[in-house]
Amino acid sequence: MNEMRNKITGTTGRPPLTAKEIGQHAGGMVCIHGSIYKIRKMSDFAFVLLRTAGEVLQCVYDQNYAEFDLEALKEESCVRLTAEVVLEERSKTGYDLRLKKAEVLSVPDQESPIVINQKCVDTSLDNLLNFRPVTLRNNSQRAIFKLQAGITDAFRAFLRAERFTEIHTPKIVQAGAEGGANIFQLDYFGRQAYLAQSPQFYKQMMVGVFERVFEIGPVFRAEKHDTKRHLNEYTGVDFEMGYIESFADIMEMETKMLQYTMEYLKEHYEKELGLLQVKLPVIAGIPTIPFNEAKALIADAYGRRTHEAKDFEPEEERLLCELMKKETGSEFVFVTHYPGEKRPFYAMDNRENPDVTDSFDLLFRGLEITTGGQRIHDYWEQIAKMKRFGLDPAQFESYLMLHKYGIPPHGGLGIGLERITSRLLMLDNVRYASLFPRDINRVAP
Amino acid sequence: MNEMRNKITGTTGRPPLTAKEIGQHAGGMVCIHGSIYKIRKMSDFAFVLLRTAGEVLQCVYDQNYAEFDLEALKEESCVRLTAEVVLEERSKTGYDLRLKKAEVLSVPDQESPIVINQKCVDTSLDNLLNFRPVTLRNNSQRAIFKLQAGITDAFRAFLRAERFTEIHTPKIVQAGAEGGANIFQLDYFGRQAYLAQSPQFYKQMMVGVFERVFEIGPVFRAEKHDTKRHLNEYTGVDFEMGYIESFADIMEMETKMLQYTMEYLKEHYEKELGLLQVKLPVIAGIPTIPFNEAKALIADAYGRRTHEAKDFEPEEERLLCELMKKETGSEFVFVTHYPGEKRPFYAMDNRENPDVTDSFDLLFRGLEITTGGQRIHDYWEQIAKMKRFGLDPAQFESYLMLHKYGIPPHGGLGIGLERITSRLLMLDNVRYASLFPRDINRVAP
Repeated sequence: MNEMRNKITGTTGRPPLTAKEIGQHAGGMVCIHGSIYKIRKMSDFAFVLLRTAGEVLQCVYDQNYAEFDLEALKEESCVRLTAEVVLEERSKTGYDLRLKKAEVLSVPDQESPIVINQKCVDTSLDNLLNFRPVTLRNNSQRAIFKLQAGITDAFRAFLRAERFTEIHTPKIVQAGAEGGANIFQLDYFGRQAYLAQSPQFYKQMMVGVFERVFEIGPVFRAEKHDTKRHLNEYTGVDFEMGYIESFADIMEMETKMLQYTMEYLKEHYEKELGLLQVKLPVIAGIPTIPFNEAKALIADAYGRRTHEAKDFEPEEERLLCELMKKETGSEFVFVTHYPGEKRPFYAMDNRENPDVTDSFDLLFRGLEITTGGQRIHDYWEQIAKMKRFGLDPAQFESYLMLHKYGIPPHGGLGIGLERITSRLLMLDNVRYASLFPRDINRVAP
Repeated sequence: MNEMRNKITGTTGRPPLTAKEIGQHAGGMVCIHGSIYKIRKMSDFAFVLLRTAGEVLQCVYDQNYAEFDLEALKEESCVRLTAEVVLEERSKTGYDLRLKKAEVLSVPDQESPIVINQKCVDTSLDNLLNFRPVTLRNNSQRAIFKLQAGITDAFRAFLRAERFTEIHTPKIVQAGAEGGANIFQLDYFGRQAYLAQSPQFYKQMMVGVFERVFEIGPVFRAEKHDTKRHLNEYTGVDFEMGYIESFADIMEMETKMLQYTMEYLKEHYEKELGLLQVKLPVIAGIPTIPFNEAKALIADAYGRRTHEAKDFEPEEERLLCELMKKETGSEFVFVTHYPGEKRPFYAMDNRENPDVTDSFDLLFRGLEITTGGQRIHDYWEQIAKMKRFGLDPAQFESYLMLHKYGIPPHGGLGIGLERITSRLLMLDNVRYASLFPRDINRVAP
């Protein structure tokens, strides 16, 4: 009876072969699978480009060797190919893949309306996104998200080594953490609930539990902006840590994390970095400048009048990065001590100058990619600041438990994954760094 | 000028010390930090239990050595302690921590209304959850979530080694993937949108891009159930893979992933497994039984009349696991070939018996923890099945692009992280395995 129950046996076998692994079979035969990316016919043979899990493999079709008709292969058909691995010095991989057999596993119903097998997908941003299930198959398009997976892998490896614990906090919440009207509402079994603008409250609570925590998950902002920098749903990389001496500890942790990440990408993502011609930033140290000084510096250097005294305009962020790069060589800059009225109610006021907060943003290649700082840990200090902000502490009862029942001095930050990806790869719009972006006009695919 | 900008220097230093690392300083002094978990006064000395990032460390306070008054320490105060590491054979760690100095970093405003420093938190489930920011500080409570982080770490490490790419897909969507009324609605800038019931559509699209993908993220179900098994927001572990020969490939991949995970936990989480007295299941292989046979078997063995012919009742899942354990020794069982009408429209019908699907559930210790199967990859087959299900293909235009423009035979699964955690730790209610559970009555903390 057990035998019968076990009669279905899988054939999963090993993970998909890489070009490098195929090289180890030189002189022998390999079985590979993938989608037909492109067929390039020459005078008496053809190149068949196979898109596999991680690469585009060039195979050679020669009717003197192949046991099938080339006509059997169509673009975007999924196939299993048997090929001989023939040493060939002139080939980039060091070998030729000479096709023997082909088994067609699936055939598309139609041709893609957008050409996806060129170096780039040559279409409008709107089209690129409308046809995302197909356009992501382009080898450069998908490399963006391979690298993005590399970034989160590196973040996790770094944070784990620093003894951060990964957490999963709810996205349906009773109150917004970041205040304002930029929050999606939802009917939750007859009650009003919201989509989390950040895991802020929860990660602070968890500092009391694990001291150091992080979360990589979706964040929702109902902002009506329609810019190159905004998404209404994005992936937040959040960490929070206890027992800090000042918010400089957070900045130091982020600096180390970014250094680790660049090294990690260099080591593991050479192929994608090459394909997308990415210039990884060198991070020796990150210069730091107080907000007020930065404002003055920009006004000075560019003779530019600002319309917003308490925050940066996007153009100012760009100019500050330009200045800092010229002056220090760094493509990153920490701006510190933001005015209190532009930071949330949980931001700790500076002890010497209560008009500013012990907070920071990190700018990278012209764009803010991180917001962080020290948080208030004293119960009565938090109550007082809530009241100053016109908030009713009774509405934040469970959040305030963390202060009421004791929490260490702590702080943390939030990084926008799509933003850091887009700046790293010099993508001109944050939407390019989101698989299926959500903006004020787009909720599909 | 640069100098001035860099004047803030962090003191983050190394990650929090573990008990093991402290042992390496025997004969010397260490500086440790954490929360005062409990003070146990003896006749002429006291034990001070310090809750650190990952442990509860026992320190000895003796006024002959200490340079501070014991009264300075209060439960849930956050402190930095200097202690001598004195070799002591009778101690579990091999040393005593003899307190010298104490610096109090924060003091709670009030005592916790719930006792959290006993072996268990002795209160109702409702109280446990209402006071989550405090009750999670209990050493056993937090161990649940340390182990949960271990499970996802193991999943990721396994899937990465098998060349799965991690993805982040949108949670605000235009249409539900799982059908039915169990979907949260939301106003998206004047349009109707929904919260994703699963990343199903997106992970299938991504098979066409990366062949193998996974996502660990929130999943939303507006189910009105109020049971021990249901959450309205949970963490879904989803993977999807192309080029399968049958859905058995998926089951094989999951079996290997679970085997890897149990080994991983054994190696890295000895402390937590001991604390929670977890008996890890031994997974030699997982028995497999078709749904219809399983139904008959249960009816046979227990003389039980079923009220639901096309699915299991919860009690049947429990009985089947009991039977299978008796018969095969396995605490897991795969049930295959579920009737088509109880599976979603993307499930592939069995070629020999179109009344059933090439799908499976995995039951573990009486509870369904996974649903998976092969998906339809042919465009017209999918269109036809949608119509049979009374669905309008025009509503699924972007989803259908994956079929229209070619996709390999593929399948995948979804695991409920809280469910597998709760069964692994023998927690009687899935809520115990969620940091901040969401159910029909609860949206806070």
